Amino acid sequence: MTRANRTIGVFDSGIGGLTVVRALRQLLPGESITYLGDTARLPYGTKSHRTIERYTLQMGEILQRYEPKLIVVACNTASAHGLAALQTASPCPVVGVIEPGAEAAAQVKGAVGVIGTLATVSSASYDDAIHRREPGKQIHSVACPLLVPLAEEGWFDDPITDAIARRYLNQLPFEVKTIVLGCTHYPTLRPSLDRTRPNTQWIDSGEVTAQSVDNLLKGNLGYRTESARGPLRILLTDASNRLREVGERFLGEALGNVELVEL
Amino acid sequence: MTRANRTIGVFDSGIGGLTVVRALRQLLPGESITYLGDTARLPYGTKSHRTIERYTLQMGEILQRYEPKLIVVACNTASAHGLAALQTASPCPVVGVIEPGAEAAAQVKGAVGVIGTLATVSSASYDDAIHRREPGKQIHSVACPLLVPLAEEGWFDDPITDAIARRYLNQLPFEVKTIVLGCTHYPTLRPSLDRTRPNTQWIDSGEVTAQSVDNLLKGNLGYRTESARGPLRILLTDASNRLREVGERFLGEALGNVELVEL
Repeated sequence: MTRANRTIGVFDSGIGGLTVVRALRQLLPGESITYLGDTARLPYGTKSHRTIERYTLQMGEILQRYEPKLIVVACNTASAHGLAALQTASPCPVVGVIEPGAEAAAQVKGAVGVIGTLATVSSASYDDAIHRREPGKQIHSVACPLLVPLAEEGWFDDPITDAIARRYLNQLPFEVKTIVLGCTHYPTLRPSLDRTRPNTQWIDSGEVTAQSVDNLLKGNLGYRTESARGPLRILLTDASNRLREVGERFLGEALGNVELVEL
Repeated sequence: MTRANRTIGVFDSGIGGLTVVRALRQLLPGESITYLGDTARLPYGTKSHRTIERYTLQMGEILQRYEPKLIVVACNTASAHGLAALQTASPCPVVGVIEPGAEAAAQVKGAVGVIGTLATVSSASYDDAIHRREPGKQIHSVACPLLVPLAEEGWFDDPITDAIARRYLNQLPFEVKTIVLGCTHYPTLRPSLDRTRPNTQWIDSGEVTAQSVDNLLKGNLGYRTESARGPLRILLTDASNRLREVGERFLGEALGNVELVEL
C-alpha cells in the first residue's frame, strides 16, 4: 500500500478524542482512521507526567502495528506530557492537539483563556506554545476537573453543567474574549459554555487539529486515493456498553464494531 | 513476626479507600496498615468486569509482598467485580466492603437504597448480598457517576454538590429511609447528602467494614501486640501532589511519606 493510502492513527486516553475524529471525518472524509482509546486507564488528566508519558508511548506502539502514515495524539493531556517522547520514538510523524490550538490562539487579538484538565493546565504547555509565537501574550488558565465527568454523564445542556461552568469560567478576567477548549471533551459542553460566557470565541482543538492534519497531507504525506468514504476502525483497551453510548454522542455517528486491545 | 503482628493490607482503586483506613484506625488504632491505591488506573467505577477483576488480582499480588495477615478490598467496585477471584488466589483471608454493608442493610426495617458507581450498581452485588440474608428485601439502586469527581474536587459542602445529590437521590422512592453509601468516596459528601435527604440512616462501608475486620481479628487472626499506635504505610501506583492534598482530607490525618509502586 502506498503511504498516502495508509491509515491515520488517532490516540486518546478514552473517548473524548472521538470529537477530533468527528472533525477529521468532516474535513477529510476520504481518509482511513484507526482510533485507539485507552479506556482501561482513563482519565489521564489527574495523573503524573511520568505515568502519562509511559502510557502515551505504549499507545503509540500499539498504533504502529497498523502502519499509520501519521499519528494524531487527540488528547490534550497526552499531548502536554507525552508528545515529545512519542515524536522521538515513532517512525512516522506525530502531531498533537496543543500546537494547532496554540497557533490559533496566538493569532487572535487580546488576552486568551485556556481551560483543561489538571495535568494539562499544570504542564503550562499552552502557555509555552503560545509564547513561542507571541511572547507577550496574556494567558489565563483554569483547570476544570469536573467537565470531563459531566460530559461523560451526558449532561450536555443542563442547569447543573451551567453552574459548574460558571464557577470555573468566572475565574477568567472579563477581558478574555477567546478561550481554548483545551480538552477534547469540552466541545460537547458548548451549550452551557456559550450561556456562561456569551460572545466568546472558542478555539476547538478538534477543528484546528483537523486543519493541521489537512496541511500535512497536502504537504508530503498525501491524501488517500481509494474509495470516497474512508473506513473507521475503533480500538479500545477496555469496552463497556456505557462507553459505546457516550462515544456515539461524541463521534456523531455509530461506532460500529469496537475491537478490544489487550494491554 | 507472629501472624497477629503482621500488617493489614488495604487496597483501593485510588484514594477513596482512605475513608476505610480512617475508620480502621479509629476502631483499631494499634494495627499496622499497608495501603495500596491504584492511582495510575483509577477510577475503576466506569470499567468492565474483566478489567476490574484483572486489576484487583494484580493489586492483591503487590500487597502479598508485605505479608499481610488480612487483605481488605476497600473499594466497592473492586469488591463487586474482583473479590471472589482474589479470595480464590490469595494465601491470606480477603474481605470486601459489600458483605459488611449488606449485613447492616439486611438488618434495618423497610426498603433500602444503594448508591454507587456505574460498575458497582450494574453488578447488582449489593442486591445479591442483601437478598442472601433477606430474600424479600426491597432494594432501590442508583448509579451516581459524578459523586466521585465531586469528592475529589473537594466540593464537600457546596450548593452544586447539593443539586447533583438531589438529582440522583430523588430517583429513590420516599419509602427509602436507609441508604448504603456504596462507594468509599461518599462519606466525605455527607453534608450535602444529609441536606438532600434528611432523616435518612446512612450505612457507611468504612465503618461497617472496620467492625467486620475487628471480628476477624477477635476470631483467629489476632490483634497486633506491639506499640500503641500502629504504623501506616501508603503505596500508590501513581503519585501527584493533588492526590496527596485530597487524600489527607479523606484520611483525616497527614499522609506522611508516600511510596510509588511500579506496575
